[in-house]
Amino acid sequence: MSRPVLDAAAVKALIAPDSVAIIGASDNVGRLTARPQAFLARHGYRGRVYPVNPRRETVQGAKAWPSVGALPEPPEHAYILLETDLAIEAVAECAAAGVKVATVLADGFAESGGEGVARQARLVAAACDGGIALVGPNSTGVVGTRTGFSATTNAAFALDTLPTGRTAVLSQSGSVIGAILSRGAAAGRGFGAFVSVGNEAALGVGELGEALVDLDEFDSFALFLETLRRPDRVAAFARRARALGKPVTAFLVGRSEAGRALAQSHTGAMIGGARALSSFLEHHGVTIADTFEGMVEMAGALSLRRRVAGRPKRATVLTTTGGGGGMVYDGIALKGSALTGLPKAADAALKAQGLSIKPGPIVDVTFAGARYDTMRAVVTALAEDPETGLVVAAIGSSAQFNPELTVRPIVDAVAELGDGAAPVIAMPVPHAPESLALFNAGGIPAFRTVESCAQAVSALLAEPEPLPPAAAPLPAAVTARLDTLAEGLADEVSSSAVLGALGIAVPASVVIGPDGDVPALGFAGPYVLKAVSAVLPHKSEAGAVRLGLKDRAAVASAVAEMRAALTSNVPGAVVSGFVVAAMETGLGEAIVGLTRDPVTGPMISVGLGGVMTEIFADLAISPAPVSPEGARAMIASVKSFALLRGYRGAPEGDLDALADVVVRLSTLASDARVAEAEINPVLVRPRGDGVVALDAVIRLESPPV
Amino acid sequence: MSRPVLDAAAVKALIAPDSVAIIGASDNVGRLTARPQAFLARHGYRGRVYPVNPRRETVQGAKAWPSVGALPEPPEHAYILLETDLAIEAVAECAAAGVKVATVLADGFAESGGEGVARQARLVAAACDGGIALVGPNSTGVVGTRTGFSATTNAAFALDTLPTGRTAVLSQSGSVIGAILSRGAAAGRGFGAFVSVGNEAALGVGELGEALVDLDEFDSFALFLETLRRPDRVAAFARRARALGKPVTAFLVGRSEAGRALAQSHTGAMIGGARALSSFLEHHGVTIADTFEGMVEMAGALSLRRRVAGRPKRATVLTTTGGGGGMVYDGIALKGSALTGLPKAADAALKAQGLSIKPGPIVDVTFAGARYDTMRAVVTALAEDPETGLVVAAIGSSAQFNPELTVRPIVDAVAELGDGAAPVIAMPVPHAPESLALFNAGGIPAFRTVESCAQAVSALLAEPEPLPPAAAPLPAAVTARLDTLAEGLADEVSSSAVLGALGIAVPASVVIGPDGDVPALGFAGPYVLKAVSAVLPHKSEAGAVRLGLKDRAAVASAVAEMRAALTSNVPGAVVSGFVVAAMETGLGEAIVGLTRDPVTGPMISVGLGGVMTEIFADLAISPAPVSPEGARAMIASVKSFALLRGYRGAPEGDLDALADVVVRLSTLASDARVAEAEINPVLVRPRGDGVVALDAVIRLESPPV
Repeated sequence: MSRPVLDAAAVKALIAPDSVAIIGASDNVGRLTARPQAFLARHGYRGRVYPVNPRRETVQGAKAWPSVGALPEPPEHAYILLETDLAIEAVAECAAAGVKVATVLADGFAESGGEGVARQARLVAAACDGGIALVGPNSTGVVGTRTGFSATTNAAFALDTLPTGRTAVLSQSGSVIGAILSRGAAAGRGFGAFVSVGNEAALGVGELGEALVDLDEFDSFALFLETLRRPDRVAAFARRARALGKPVTAFLVGRSEAGRALAQSHTGAMIGGARALSSFLEHHGVTIADTFEGMVEMAGALSLRRRVAGRPKRATVLTTTGGGGGMVYDGIALKGSALTGLPKAADAALKAQGLSIKPGPIVDVTFAGARYDTMRAVVTALAEDPETGLVVAAIGSSAQFNPELTVRPIVDAVAELGDGAAPVIAMPVPHAPESLALFNAGGIPAFRTVESCAQAVSALLAEPEPLPPAAAPLPAAVTARLDTLAEGLADEVSSSAVLGALGIAVPASVVIGPDGDVPALGFAGPYVLKAVSAVLPHKSEAGAVRLGLKDRAAVASAVAEMRAALTSNVPGAVVSGFVVAAMETGLGEAIVGLTRDPVTGPMISVGLGGVMTEIFADLAISPAPVSPEGARAMIASVKSFALLRGYRGAPEGDLDALADVVVRLSTLASDARVAEAEINPVLVRPRGDGVVALDAVIRLESPPV
Repeated sequence: MSRPVLDAAAVKALIAPDSVAIIGASDNVGRLTARPQAFLARHGYRGRVYPVNPRRETVQGAKAWPSVGALPEPPEHAYILLETDLAIEAVAECAAAGVKVATVLADGFAESGGEGVARQARLVAAACDGGIALVGPNSTGVVGTRTGFSATTNAAFALDTLPTGRTAVLSQSGSVIGAILSRGAAAGRGFGAFVSVGNEAALGVGELGEALVDLDEFDSFALFLETLRRPDRVAAFARRARALGKPVTAFLVGRSEAGRALAQSHTGAMIGGARALSSFLEHHGVTIADTFEGMVEMAGALSLRRRVAGRPKRATVLTTTGGGGGMVYDGIALKGSALTGLPKAADAALKAQGLSIKPGPIVDVTFAGARYDTMRAVVTALAEDPETGLVVAAIGSSAQFNPELTVRPIVDAVAELGDGAAPVIAMPVPHAPESLALFNAGGIPAFRTVESCAQAVSALLAEPEPLPPAAAPLPAAVTARLDTLAEGLADEVSSSAVLGALGIAVPASVVIGPDGDVPALGFAGPYVLKAVSAVLPHKSEAGAVRLGLKDRAAVASAVAEMRAALTSNVPGAVVSGFVVAAMETGLGEAIVGLTRDPVTGPMISVGLGGVMTEIFADLAISPAPVSPEGARAMIASVKSFALLRGYRGAPEGDLDALADVVVRLSTLASDARVAEAEINPVLVRPRGDGVVALDAVIRLESPPV
C-alpha cells in the first residue's frame, strides 16, 4: 500500500473542513468571487465561513476580515480568489497562519507558459515552505457534498439542492465539473465530492485520489482528464482504488490529434500519445468511458462490480417493450457482451406463481405484463437465479407515465434482494427523468442512452486487466551488458547480446571482425550473413544481408563479396564486422518494442509487424514492465495474430513464448538509459517450439536528471 | 421521378384527414383502445371523429356508431383497433364504405409466422380488392402533428402539448415512436408526423416515404428500422428525398449478430447482412445515425445541408468554456471533420467593434465574453465570413442559468442572418433543457451529447455518396455468354469468357480439351497452366496449377504430368480441359465480388483479398450496379489499398482501372440468373497500365419467380 500524501487532518480539511476562509470574497453578487460564500450558505455548510476582504466591513451580510492572520482561528481550508501575483503571497500568509489546505483560483501560471512557469514555481515553493497542501492554481474549487462544503466559483453549484452521492469527481477542467453536477442532478444522481485540480502544481489527480480513496464515504471515482501530469501517483491511486474495490472511470479529452494539440495549448502540459494515455490508465484498472455522459452515468454504477464477481458473465434484458428492449439488447451485443434469456429456475419459479413468459432471448413481459406484481415477481426471480449475471431493465412508455407500474416494483424488489442476488441496472427508453431518479435513488444505476448502458454492462462483466508488476532491478548480467554500450543506437551484435542476457532466445551465431576470417561454425546451417553496423538501417537494400548460405565455404565467399560491395557501394558505411547466424524458420513473425512516452513513460508494444500492422494500427500497447498475464492479454488483443492462432486450420504459433519475450524485453524499462529497444522480427515457431529473436536494436540515452 | 403510390387525396387522408373513424373505440380510459379518441381530443384535432362501437350509445361522451357503414359520411381514415380476425373484416367494410386509408393495430399476422402469414395475405387482399390504402397491421397508429391528428395507441402521446416540426418519422417499432416524441419534446424539438408502419403488409417505409416526401410541410425524415422489406421502394423514396434536398436519417437496430437474430424473431422479416443494409441505405443517400439519440437530434438538423453547400467543408467551434469547448472540438475531430479558428475578416470585423478574441483553434470568448453583445457580434461576424463553413456553439454554464447572456444573442443573431450565411448549431455542455428548446425553436439545431453533435457536423460537411445508377439491360454479347452456362458453378474458361464479354481484361489464353494437344501459342510467355474444372475449388493444393512455364514444350510436358497426377490423385475430379494463359505480373491483387443479399439484393464488393481483408473486414460494399464515381469511392474507403496508393514511396497501382472492373462486374446484377460472380484475383498493374482478371467464378441459379 502506498503512503497517503495528505494526513487525515489535511484530508478532512480538503473535503469537509470545520472552517474555511474565502480570501478575496466579494459582496457584489454578480461577481465570480461572490459565489463560494453564497454557495456555502445555500447548501447548508455548517462550518465557520470567514470572508477575507480588507476593503469592507461585511461581505454578503457576514463580518469581513482584513487578513487571514487576523482570523480568530486558523481556518482549515482557504479558497484564494485573488489574482495571480497576490495569490502567491496569500498562500504564504495562509501557511503562516496555520491553514491546512489552500485552493487557488487564479490562472496565469504554468498553463500560460513563459513567466507563468516561474510564477507557478514560486507558488509551489510558498506552499512547500509553509507545509500547506495546495490545490490548483487555476482551480474552480473543492466541494464535499455531504457537508455542503461548496468552496467553488463554478456557476452550476447555484442549483437549489446539492445532491449527494458516493462518487468523487476529480477534473482537470474547472468548468466541466458543473456539467457533471447538472447532468447528474437531472437524473437524480449525486456525487460525493468535486475537485477542480487546475494546474496540479502540487496536488494532482493522483495525490488527491490517494487522499480520498480510503474514505468510506466514497465508493467510486470519476476523472475528467486532458493529460496526465504525474502518472506514477495516478497509478498508485488507481492501484489502491482497485485493491479497495472502488472503480475509477475516466473520460479523456484529446483522443483526436487536433484535440490533443488543443489540450496542450489549454493546459500547458506535455502531451504524449493518446493510446499510451488510455493504455496506461486501463492497465492500472481505470475504465475509459466512450462518452462524457457515459462517465457521468457509469462511474457510480461500476461499484456493482463486486456483486457481479463470481456470477456468470452475461446480461439478461428484461423489458416491457419489444422495440426498445431490442435496441438495448442489440446495443449490449454490439459492445461484445454475452446475453442470455430467462433461466430455467426463474422460469419455473414464475410459472409456480402463474406467470408465463414467452421464451426468447429477451425477457419481454409485454404491455400486458407492465404491472406492479408481475414486474416485481419477474425481477426477483431473475435476480435470485444463480444463472443470471446482471439484469438490465429496459422500460418503455410506463417509465414516462406510470412509473408505479414498472419502475417502483423494480426498486422495491431490489430493496428486498440479498447481497447474493444479481445486480440490476435500468434503461428507460423514453425521456423519463423521474424514473431515472427513482432508479438511481433505489441503488439501481439508470442510464439515459443505450450506448452508455451498454458500456456499463461491458465494464461490469469484463475480467479485470492484469495489473502491471512493480518495476524490479534488472539482473546484474543485463546491466553489465548495457554498461558496455555507448549512447545512441547499438549495433546488432551488442543488441543481441543484451537479449541473450535477458533470457530471450537468439539464433546461434559467430561474429567476424571487419577483416577477419570465417572460423569453423559450431552449429548447423543453412546460414545467414549480415554486416554489423549501427548506421546501416536498411541492411537488405544495402546488400548487407545474404540468406541461405549452406556451408562455411559459401559463407566465406559471401563475406568476401559483401566486403567488396559495401566498400564500393556504401562509402560512408562503418562496418564493424560480420555476423553469421543459423537461419531459422517459423510460422510467422512478430514485432516487440519498448519506447518511452513523454507522458506515461515506458510502454511495451507487440504486433505482427509489417504494413498491415501500420495501416490498421493493430498493435497492443501497455505500460512496461508487463506481467506474463498482461503480455498474454496484449497478444490476445492483436487481431492479426489470428494468423498464429490456428486461422483456418493452420498450425498454432507459440504465442506463450512470444508473451515471455514481451515480458523480458519490458523489464529493460527499469534501466533509465534504455530509450528504445525493438525486436523485429521475433520468429514464431509452432506451439511448444518457442520463438527466436532474429534482429534487434537498442538505443541508449543519458537519462534526464 | 417515381410515380407516387398514393394519390393526393389518400396522402391527405393518411396524415391530415378531415374525418376519422376509430373502430373498436373503448369508453374505458384504462384501455389501450380508448387512447386514440382521447389523444385526438387532447391535441385539438378539428376533423370529425367517429367512434365505432356497436355495444354502446356513446364512447367518451361522443355518439358511438354501430358500424363504419352506418356513418353519415365515409371517413377519410379509419384506425381499426379490433383483434386479428375481426380486423380483416373491418378492412373490407371500410373499403366498401369508401374509406381511403385504414390503419390496423392488431398483431398475430406475418410477424407471428405460420397461420399469421396466411392471415396477413387475406388482410392485404381485402385492402387491395377494396382499393383502400393499408397501414400496418401491428401499427400503433398515424399522427400528423400540424392538425393534431393523433390516431395512435402509443402512450407517449398522452403529453399535454404535441410539439410540431418538419421531420416525418417512419418507424418499424410501434413503441419507439413514443421515445422519439418524448426525447424530442424534452429538448423543445417537435416532429411533423409519426407513422408506425407495423408489418408493412401493403404500405411500408418506402411507399409511405414516397407519399409524404413531396409535401412542403416536411423537410426531413427519420427512420427507425429493424429490417428492409421492399428495398426498391425505400430506394425510390430516398432518391426522391435527395432530389428534393430533404435529408433522410435512419437508426438501425440489429447491427450486432445477436440483435439481427432478435429483430428477425420480432418482425418475422427476412434478415440479410447488417453491412449490406447500412450500405444499401447510405448509397441511396440515407445517413445512418450512430446512436438512437443521434437520429432524434440529427434528422431535422441535416436540412441545413443546403446551406453548407458551396461553403468550406469545416467547422468552427465558438465557446464560452475552455473545457467544454475542447470536448466538443475533440469530438468533432474524432469523427474526422476539419476544424478551423476565427477567419481573418471576422477577426477584423470584431476588432473594429472593439472585440479582441485570443487567437487559437477555438473561438473562445471566455467567461468574460459571455455577454449578450459580445456573443451576438461574434456569431454574426463568424457566420457572415465566407471562410466559415459551419458554426458550432459550445455553451457552458450560462446555458443552464443565464441563457439571456449567451443563448438568446445566438438566436437573435441567426434570425437576422441572410440565407447566404454559414449555418449555426449548438451544444450546451451542462444539462440545459430550456436552452436546447430556445435554440431549436430558433432554427438552431441543438444537441445533448458531443457525439451526436459531432456526427451531425460530419454528416453536414460530408460530400454526398454517388447515387447508384439505374440497372440497365446487359449487352447482348454478355447475355449470350450467360445463355451458354448451365445452372451452378461455371468453370474458369466459361467465367472468363463472360468477363471478356463485359469488357474486363483477361490474360491471353488458349483452351485444350481434356485429351487434346497443346497448339501453337500465339502470345508470349512465360505461361500458366491450369486444369479447367468447376468442382476443384482449391486448384493449387490439388496440383492443378503450374506457373512460369517458359515455352510450348514446357507447357506440353506440364499438361502430360498434370493429366497423370489428377487422374491418380483426385479420383472424382471432372477435368473438362486445360487452359494455358500468359503469366501476368503487377503491383498487387484485389478481389471483386457480386452477391445477392436476401434483403437488399445485389451487392458488389471490393477489397485487397487474402486473410487481412477477412480479419479486418476491410471490404467496401455497395448496391449493384455501381457508378464509376461510386466504385472509386468504394476503393478509396478500403484501408489496405493504401498499399496500392503509393504507400511509403511504392509505385501507385491503377486503381481507376480496378474501379472500372468493379463497375463492369456490377452490371451482372441485371441478369437475375447470376447468383454470384467473383474475380479473385484482379492483378493491379502500375497506374496507366490497367488491371487484369486472373481468375473468376460465376454461379447461376434459376431466379425466384
